Amino acid sequence: MHKVDLNCDMGESFGLYELGNDEEMMQYITSANIACGFHGGDPHVMRKTVELAQQHDVAIGAHPAFPDLLGFGRRYMICTPSEVKDYVTYQLGALREFSRAIGAQVQHCKPHGALFMKAMEDRQLARAILEAVHEADPNMIVFAFNRSEVYEEAVKMGVPVAKEAYSDREHTESGSIVLTRKGAEIKDYEAMAQRVVRMVKEGRVVTHNGKDVSIEAETICIHGDTPGAPNLAKAIVHALRAADVQISPIKHVIK
Amino acid sequence: MHKVDLNCDMGESFGLYELGNDEEMMQYITSANIACGFHGGDPHVMRKTVELAQQHDVAIGAHPAFPDLLGFGRRYMICTPSEVKDYVTYQLGALREFSRAIGAQVQHCKPHGALFMKAMEDRQLARAILEAVHEADPNMIVFAFNRSEVYEEAVKMGVPVAKEAYSDREHTESGSIVLTRKGAEIKDYEAMAQRVVRMVKEGRVVTHNGKDVSIEAETICIHGDTPGAPNLAKAIVHALRAADVQISPIKHVIK
Amino acid sequence: MHKVDLNCDMGESFGLYELGNDEEMMQYITSANIACGFHGGDPHVMRKTVELAQQHDVAIGAHPAFPDLLGFGRRYMICTPSEVKDYVTYQLGALREFSRAIGAQVQHCKPHGALFMKAMEDRQLARAILEAVHEADPNMIVFAFNRSEVYEEAVKMGVPVAKEAYSDREHTESGSIVLTRKGAEIKDYEAMAQRVVRMVKEGRVVTHNGKDVSIEAETICIHGDTPGAPNLAKAIVHALRAADVQISPIKHVIK
Amino acid sequence: MHKVDLNCDMGESFGLYELGNDEEMMQYITSANIACGFHGGDPHVMRKTVELAQQHDVAIGAHPAFPDLLGFGRRYMICTPSEVKDYVTYQLGALREFSRAIGAQVQHCKPHGALFMKAMEDRQLARAILEAVHEADPNMIVFAFNRSEVYEEAVKMGVPVAKEAYSDREHTESGSIVLTRKGAEIKDYEAMAQRVVRMVKEGRVVTHNGKDVSIEAETICIHGDTPGAPNLAKAIVHALRAADVQISPIKHVIK
Repeated sequence: MHKVDLNCDMGESFGLYELGNDEEMMQYITSANIACGFHGGDPHVMRKTVELAQQHDVAIGAHPAFPDLLGFGRRYMICTPSEVKDYVTYQLGALREFSRAIGAQVQHCKPHGALFMKAMEDRQLARAILEAVHEADPNMIVFAFNRSEVYEEAVKMGVPVAKEAYSDREHTESGSIVLTRKGAEIKDYEAMAQRVVRMVKEGRVVTHNGKDVSIEAETICIHGDTPGAPNLAKAIVHALRAADVQISPIKHVIK
Repeated sequence: MHKVDLNCDMGESFGLYELGNDEEMMQYITSANIACGFHGGDPHVMRKTVELAQQHDVAIGAHPAFPDLLGFGRRYMICTPSEVKDYVTYQLGALREFSRAIGAQVQHCKPHGALFMKAMEDRQLARAILEAVHEADPNMIVFAFNRSEVYEEAVKMGVPVAKEAYSDREHTESGSIVLTRKGAEIKDYEAMAQRVVRMVKEGRVVTHNGKDVSIEAETICIHGDTPGAPNLAKAIVHALRAADVQISPIKHVIK
Repeated sequence: MHKVDLNCDMGESFGLYELGNDEEMMQYITSANIACGFHGGDPHVMRKTVELAQQHDVAIGAHPAFPDLLGFGRRYMICTPSEVKDYVTYQLGALREFSRAIGAQVQHCKPHGALFMKAMEDRQLARAILEAVHEADPNMIVFAFNRSEVYEEAVKMGVPVAKEAYSDREHTESGSIVLTRKGAEIKDYEAMAQRVVRMVKEGRVVTHNGKDVSIEAETICIHGDTPGAPNLAKAIVHALRAADVQISPIKHVIK
Repeated sequence: MHKVDLNCDMGESFGLYELGNDEEMMQYITSANIACGFHGGDPHVMRKTVELAQQHDVAIGAHPAFPDLLGFGRRYMICTPSEVKDYVTYQLGALREFSRAIGAQVQHCKPHGALFMKAMEDRQLARAILEAVHEADPNMIVFAFNRSEVYEEAVKMGVPVAKEAYSDREHTESGSIVLTRKGAEIKDYEAMAQRVVRMVKEGRVVTHNGKDVSIEAETICIHGDTPGAPNLAKAIVHALRAADVQISPIKHVIK
């Protein structure tokens, strides 16, 4: 039987500023990537979000970023690998404390924004993140593109790693994604859901430039800020169930 | 045999900005209160400082603060108890992660600056801090004035608590301290050291207004930014040893 | 003929975080209090907001705050008067630069949140703000409660000052307001608008505890985050016009 | 008669954190590049520093940076040109307000750290900065490498621009500098001072790789954090005077 995890970024509100549809999205996903205060999130939001995840039986993950609240962690900053490692350790620690406070474990780590994208192609950055994760908890699972430095280095270092595919972004042949959101224009949630089913069951996807390529989808990302995200999530859940795919947190998906 | 702990604030540098004499002070103290990034300190400084403490066999403690880097955590901000609890949890988590990374435990928590001073007299704030500490680790020791809300609430809640006295600040009858530093003017380290010995062995100190009062000194604070702090620390260590007082991390001092 | 100014806080978005209904509210008001980056707002939002104000012929004002983005400037921080003066100068300067870039002048200054509320009752804080404003531009108008330290000190110092009343907060006898929003519960925009008309034309208002007191309303605040704020603003504009009150920027209201 | 300006970064302290030797350096320089709060500096430090400059008859300049206090503005962040323009406008405005408060004008703008270095080779970034400067004050002078995008675009846009050379960094043939500080190792202030004299009088310098190239030195930078900076500054002033070079603020040097 096929299995897949559904993940979404969560807890990205800050102080008075609200972002995302956390309560709604929690109903559909199995793994939450929770902001740790560097690009979004704050201590209060973090506590509330780990509690919300637990109430919905959603696995808790860390979503660390560059220290750039103004740019929402979407701007690449040239940091040294040791700076990046320290930033990740700091953010993991903070989130793990809120998690422990409710008796839960941090299941996974998905770096955010520019840190995620850059690490996929920069070996040193990839290793910096992986070292911080491994040091914190050798069982913590890292999310990565199918073909990426993070994936390759994780395998070498013995860090559990999950292959991630995107429900609302176009894939490229190299294993990356196209940042312009197709999802922003497309309202055809059914087609998007069927594309997810195909990635999971057939291991194939049509890229942004029309090629049919292989892909492994152990966890599927649904961006909370994609227009109509909860509807997309709902469509994906229904389509996966109809196709007899089991939806579970990533720890139950990867071997 | 009398025992006492010597503590000092540490790791308060930030980015390019350097503060304190951490390397020197580590030679004399037994417990380090390490800044957690809210009033000072940053992820890189935190990792370096926990490593430095370990190298010197100094016990690691958290030094959480209000989120006010510009004011160095010395300005009281009216936060709700639940905000304060969340800030402390966040900072404890971050420091504990760096500590775990080197196989060490966070022994104690000493709130910083305005958070420390206000909590001593505000029961709600005191409880907010104690709840965060207790949730993180029921064995973590909190530092408090002899007569303070933090001390009283810690006893009620079963949180281990250490009575702190100051080598470089005047005490008041009510158990608090006077913020104007005597140490800033006095260069008589020997007299200051003898005052510490008397607090530890006789349990008495002369207050800022000349009264001789009882005090319990389980841990002695030496501020790293007191002029000549390393010399003062050295004098205190020598005087305590000469008086047959054993200097140990607070976990070995309190029962 | 009666005249009154309508003001609203604006430009409080930050980075990716959006707040308020600036575009809608600009249609109804005559003076915009624009955040300056300390509690909300950022350089990009500031430029956009001064441009938006100009397009709508709305006078530009500064809305400086304590440096507390996490608390949205709503938490009182114990700062010295000289710190406060410097914070206000900094924020005024930044906003005035964006304003000059489009050939506009900053007409007024309304401190934000905790800085506003505290200054009304603290003479030193009041003077610190007034000194910064006066130094920047002796013609800049400060907004204040009818009976407040800011109002009294402004008169003494020769700083132009406007008496402010609130459309969506209850007034107290002492000239302050009650922070719990009546507006949050009440949907009766028409009644709220008539209350504004009475404040402007009769100079009277019923306080939160039912007393009918005198009030001068040279400028009326409509909070952009009051539920249905644009509808409230619309109702106020209609009611004022129906009552033959001229709505103009504060510089044309005060003599 | 030859003329040259001597400039130094100033006002880079932040809150409790002190940096640089501002008081000493002010005695030797003619133009101060004052931090504006993004990489260093804060409102209080800014006011103090413009006052200090005025007391020493040193011309005031803005030293804007990327918003990265943790990295001291030394890390390149990928920002859009319009973000950069807005950041510069904001910082210029803040500094100009403190300057106006003492009746002084901001003479020049020297971007800081990564913003400076990147702008020299990136036309879009160069234009973004120049637009902000030009909008604020068409007479404000921008500092740039001899051969750089900033220099070329400034000339095209009619923005006054000054050619800068470095007393404590090696120059390259392309007109840039080598970030590793020769000055950090060399204590031969006399040789460094003579190198400055040669740049000013002969318009030539030996590059890091030993080539003798032409250079125009209208303003000479002395970094305040170069070891022994005040001694270097003193040596340069003496050598320039001995060589009959007049030292004046840049507005009196460029035509």
